[in-house]
Amino acid sequence: MEKVTVPLGARAYDILIGHGTLPTLGQAVAATGLEGRCVVVTNPTVGALYEQPVLAALTAAGFSASVCRVPDGERFKTAKWLGRIHDHLLEQGLDRHGFIVALGGGVVGDMAGFAAATFLRGIPFVQVPTTVVAQVDSSVGGKTGVNHPRGKNLIGAFHQPRLVFMDMAVLATLPRRELLAGMAEVIKYGVIADRAFFDYLRGHVAAILALDPQVMARVVGRCCAIKAQVVADDETETSGRRAILNYGHTVGHAVEAVTGYRRYKHGEAVAMGMVAAARIAHKLGRLDARAVAAQVDILEAFGLPVALPRGMDPNRVVAALGHDKKAAQGRVKMVLASAIGQVELVPLAPDEIGRLLA
Amino acid sequence: MEKVTVPLGARAYDILIGHGTLPTLGQAVAATGLEGRCVVVTNPTVGALYEQPVLAALTAAGFSASVCRVPDGERFKTAKWLGRIHDHLLEQGLDRHGFIVALGGGVVGDMAGFAAATFLRGIPFVQVPTTVVAQVDSSVGGKTGVNHPRGKNLIGAFHQPRLVFMDMAVLATLPRRELLAGMAEVIKYGVIADRAFFDYLRGHVAAILALDPQVMARVVGRCCAIKAQVVADDETETSGRRAILNYGHTVGHAVEAVTGYRRYKHGEAVAMGMVAAARIAHKLGRLDARAVAAQVDILEAFGLPVALPRGMDPNRVVAALGHDKKAAQGRVKMVLASAIGQVELVPLAPDEIGRLLA
Repeated sequence: MEKVTVPLGARAYDILIGHGTLPTLGQAVAATGLEGRCVVVTNPTVGALYEQPVLAALTAAGFSASVCRVPDGERFKTAKWLGRIHDHLLEQGLDRHGFIVALGGGVVGDMAGFAAATFLRGIPFVQVPTTVVAQVDSSVGGKTGVNHPRGKNLIGAFHQPRLVFMDMAVLATLPRRELLAGMAEVIKYGVIADRAFFDYLRGHVAAILALDPQVMARVVGRCCAIKAQVVADDETETSGRRAILNYGHTVGHAVEAVTGYRRYKHGEAVAMGMVAAARIAHKLGRLDARAVAAQVDILEAFGLPVALPRGMDPNRVVAALGHDKKAAQGRVKMVLASAIGQVELVPLAPDEIGRLLA
Repeated sequence: MEKVTVPLGARAYDILIGHGTLPTLGQAVAATGLEGRCVVVTNPTVGALYEQPVLAALTAAGFSASVCRVPDGERFKTAKWLGRIHDHLLEQGLDRHGFIVALGGGVVGDMAGFAAATFLRGIPFVQVPTTVVAQVDSSVGGKTGVNHPRGKNLIGAFHQPRLVFMDMAVLATLPRRELLAGMAEVIKYGVIADRAFFDYLRGHVAAILALDPQVMARVVGRCCAIKAQVVADDETETSGRRAILNYGHTVGHAVEAVTGYRRYKHGEAVAMGMVAAARIAHKLGRLDARAVAAQVDILEAFGLPVALPRGMDPNRVVAALGHDKKAAQGRVKMVLASAIGQVELVPLAPDEIGRLLA
């Protein structure tokens, strides 16, 4: 099993990356010092596939575990469903020594993590991400939360997991579209921090699409290592360093908001957002045309959308940008690449972004 | 102005205690480095009295401030009203550089603090406590949260304020019953940590009831200094040290739960809980009869209840104890005094507490 440590002092934790390792989950959790009772939060889709092996692994290691299912989909990542998880934890008699296991993608991880952050003023939780997006992004770094009618992730907290446990074998049951969407976040790491990794991805498209175990473990492991370092430098997104992880997310979030979080997968919206950011950087004279084309090419190689939806009103995108929670004094700090592997933060007014998008 | 610092490293903050100092609130907030937009969370009762001077003080110091009122009373400290505060923050366009000012008693402080803890993954907040309970207890130490139908404060987070600002002059408008209830928490500090302070209180009953400014500042300041030290030793209630602050709260919380949080003020329930804890300690041979009587005497001097409500079914209290969030493996760690100024943690099963209460 590959191990990446997120070095956060008293809140440090390991990311374990393996293949066919789900049956060893209980031992890995026990090794962190957790004991007693836990609740596995999942959704019906993932639960039908992996709830039983996860329960078996936890029970075999001496844990008492029950399952709390939340509906599958970004539109259920709400305060209402957060409340349902809290209700379940109380019905199960979970106390401060209990913990949560988040089994699923980003929606499950964010909501289960936020439930852990806010139950009895904070209990531990373990991430068992089952999508590529969750593995390389949302399960690592402690961002938890729910959406609000006014925008995504507006209600939430920083709460680091005790352990992130990934079995790459679960990707075999991941819908193709989810796998491809996840690759947008993977490619993002190359653009923001690692040109060699970006090139590695370009050379391994077929192996990735075939879910080659060693290639996938290497790809996910590299993303986690980059993310772990960025998170360690700026745990609560205050110094600005962590903001580089939002490459492609400014316009991506706006597209998701405008389309009601229904039409696109998060990763697909990020792909559009990355190309939008690349084109804006180019128009501002910050990025050469080849680096724009390189991003478009690799995103297209993974079947990802590279242009804003046809017919989408740019004014609605600009309005959604104004609600971006990273906005400060009316300007959005947008992450722009100056080369593959290098990014900078550029404050732009939503109107300006709108003009550059047109 | 008296100053007590809560020494929490990067999260350290000051408690400022003065008399007639409300007009200087804005300058004190500005001195912490906060700037820009804020929302004052209060209730109609406190708002009618102090909302305008607080807004004036904040505006004079250059802040842009609006008011969000929540209903007055423990039964409104709910996830629903938390959501209303979040809605208001978003309507006002508060971003990550904004902050909340909690103006009121414990309900306002807990709920506004939790709103700050969970808005955009955490924004700063300032406590302006207007009751004795809030001044000596709930405004200091970072415990925030809301109640759940199954129990008090079950949903919440640790989130330290940026500043605690107290103007003792506001106590002039505090209903007598609230003042007396607050004295239960004040007396608690003497019992758990400071025999000399306990004796000082016995010698200053009349001055306290007359709200003598110097005596009140000294009393509140001493409580805050004790609490600051305990919180610094155990910020998130993990080492057990912080648990001593729960003296009187185990049975007190149960009485509040059984009576639907309506019949008693929190401090009144704590007074009953302190006497219950004292009697239990005496029955277990851990505390002499004089120390029990001393607690009963001083609580009675402040007009506080010293016996469980007549006719209350002890089985219902025992059932409520089982839901205590401090319960671990079916036992409640109860704080018992071994002398005035000295306490210890004793794990007891709810049934055992029930028998000792009988």
